[in-house]
Amino acid sequence: MKTLPISRSDILAAHQRIQSHIHRTPLLTSEILDDLSGARLHFKCENFQKAGAFKARGAFHVMSLLTAKQRSRGVITHSSGNHGQALAKAAGIAGVDATIVMPSNSPQVKIAAVKHYGANIILCEPTQEAREETCAIEMARTGAHLVPPYDDYRIISGQATCAKEVIEDQPDMDVLIAPVGGGGLLAGSGLAAHWFSDSMQVIGAEPVLADDTARSFRSGIYSPRYSRETVADGVRVGVGKLTFPIIQQCCTDVLTATEDQIVHAMQLIWERLKIIVETSCALPLAVVLANPDRFKDKRIALILTGGNVDLTLLPFTMT
Amino acid sequence: MKTLPISRSDILAAHQRIQSHIHRTPLLTSEILDDLSGARLHFKCENFQKAGAFKARGAFHVMSLLTAKQRSRGVITHSSGNHGQALAKAAGIAGVDATIVMPSNSPQVKIAAVKHYGANIILCEPTQEAREETCAIEMARTGAHLVPPYDDYRIISGQATCAKEVIEDQPDMDVLIAPVGGGGLLAGSGLAAHWFSDSMQVIGAEPVLADDTARSFRSGIYSPRYSRETVADGVRVGVGKLTFPIIQQCCTDVLTATEDQIVHAMQLIWERLKIIVETSCALPLAVVLANPDRFKDKRIALILTGGNVDLTLLPFTMT
Repeated sequence: MKTLPISRSDILAAHQRIQSHIHRTPLLTSEILDDLSGARLHFKCENFQKAGAFKARGAFHVMSLLTAKQRSRGVITHSSGNHGQALAKAAGIAGVDATIVMPSNSPQVKIAAVKHYGANIILCEPTQEAREETCAIEMARTGAHLVPPYDDYRIISGQATCAKEVIEDQPDMDVLIAPVGGGGLLAGSGLAAHWFSDSMQVIGAEPVLADDTARSFRSGIYSPRYSRETVADGVRVGVGKLTFPIIQQCCTDVLTATEDQIVHAMQLIWERLKIIVETSCALPLAVVLANPDRFKDKRIALILTGGNVDLTLLPFTMT
Repeated sequence: MKTLPISRSDILAAHQRIQSHIHRTPLLTSEILDDLSGARLHFKCENFQKAGAFKARGAFHVMSLLTAKQRSRGVITHSSGNHGQALAKAAGIAGVDATIVMPSNSPQVKIAAVKHYGANIILCEPTQEAREETCAIEMARTGAHLVPPYDDYRIISGQATCAKEVIEDQPDMDVLIAPVGGGGLLAGSGLAAHWFSDSMQVIGAEPVLADDTARSFRSGIYSPRYSRETVADGVRVGVGKLTFPIIQQCCTDVLTATEDQIVHAMQLIWERLKIIVETSCALPLAVVLANPDRFKDKRIALILTGGNVDLTLLPFTMT
């Protein structure tokens, strides 16, 4: 087995650095969802996390590692929203300038929140290329330090603290399922299971319409792809260069769900857990419900990644 | 001062009887909502309560007090939804037959939940008179024991345990605000403050379009009225004969909010706390935001009464 790029002590140190800035989010359960799935589900509520998503973990971690020179020039990133919000918030608290490049079709609530945290916003075309190019131009102009949304070991170490908390709070989980877009959370979860759990498997959940990680995982050939088709807007980006090899090494599988399955699972979570989650959060429950035999009677942790929803754009109330 | 009909030990006993059946619901906070209100807000999340609302407290309490003969004949109630769900659930767990008379315009999600808990449903016209009459006819037929939604000292003692938990978890609150429909929760909250807190005030929150409690409170003349106009469907009923004198004795005030203020507060709770709450839950926040001078810098507990929302009927996504 190849040496993993992030060690046990890297994750321990990351958790210690960010602990005072983040919430230790709760695990929620529902008898009705257990009955419906035939499994025992524990939902890790990162929708209650600072800035509304798990992304706060990675962002605060990077801020804690900046040099004085980097701090003085500010930070920059491109993000469809949650990473941008998280970095804006973390930078604001650290007293560091932040610039967030956002696709022009980002939910209004996310743009408003980034503004609220005091960051500069630059809107660009909604493609991965446009995001990276806009970012590069601005960096050349200002010398700002790039904080990538997922493909960065500091970010991955930060996101790993989420699954680490699950393992500490519920050491007997059979499986942890996380959505996968760029793969920072899934890679971090795989690493946390590798270093802190004896037996917990980690599985990724991805829309059929954005299944580049599942395809890459099965074929062994890294083939990232941006997919604008899925309603799960948080996972449209392609899987990362750094995250993918970790996912290959530390995760058991990547499963997919259809758009209908995603929307149905989202509605179930809203109705039964009484909490607001983003569409992407529904992916883990959607793959559990789509694979009843595989998950029967299993104890499963499902990461609900964020709650920054534009309430005027709910898919199931627009029909 | 008139002797209160419910004593300190009544509430202690009620809490002990129901403790194993109910959740001790959390208090949530939000920096953004604190900034917006100029106060320090603690939201008591009864939307996470068993059967999705505080009503489980009273329902489980009544079930714990039934005689063998009452149990054998079953229980019956009329309810726009949450009390019916709570009684259906409590009766189901106790192995007692339950019949729920529901107004025909009840949210579909509430009707479905009552069915799910195994109770019989009788639909009637959406007026208080029709509910009571339908109930009486069925009781005459079956001998079922009536469990009123609010005007019953066993119910009021059960609902009092909610504010008791708030006082135990946050003893330094200046004010507790609860929505008021029939007044079971508000009367119970007033009693809990009277018996368990040195200084916490209790205030009711009511829609302007259903302000019979506020008018009765100010004039001193008991004038209950059913109001079908407000979006806050959980508080349309008139204040009770038994609850009102307790509210007069134990509460400081009853404040009102307009429909716009209610919908705005509801949207804020959804967006900022990331939780699903019923429209009626927005009343306490709505009256805080409508009275900024009165509540400036106060430590305020706000009871979020329930989360049984029909997601196809959100007022602010239908505009």
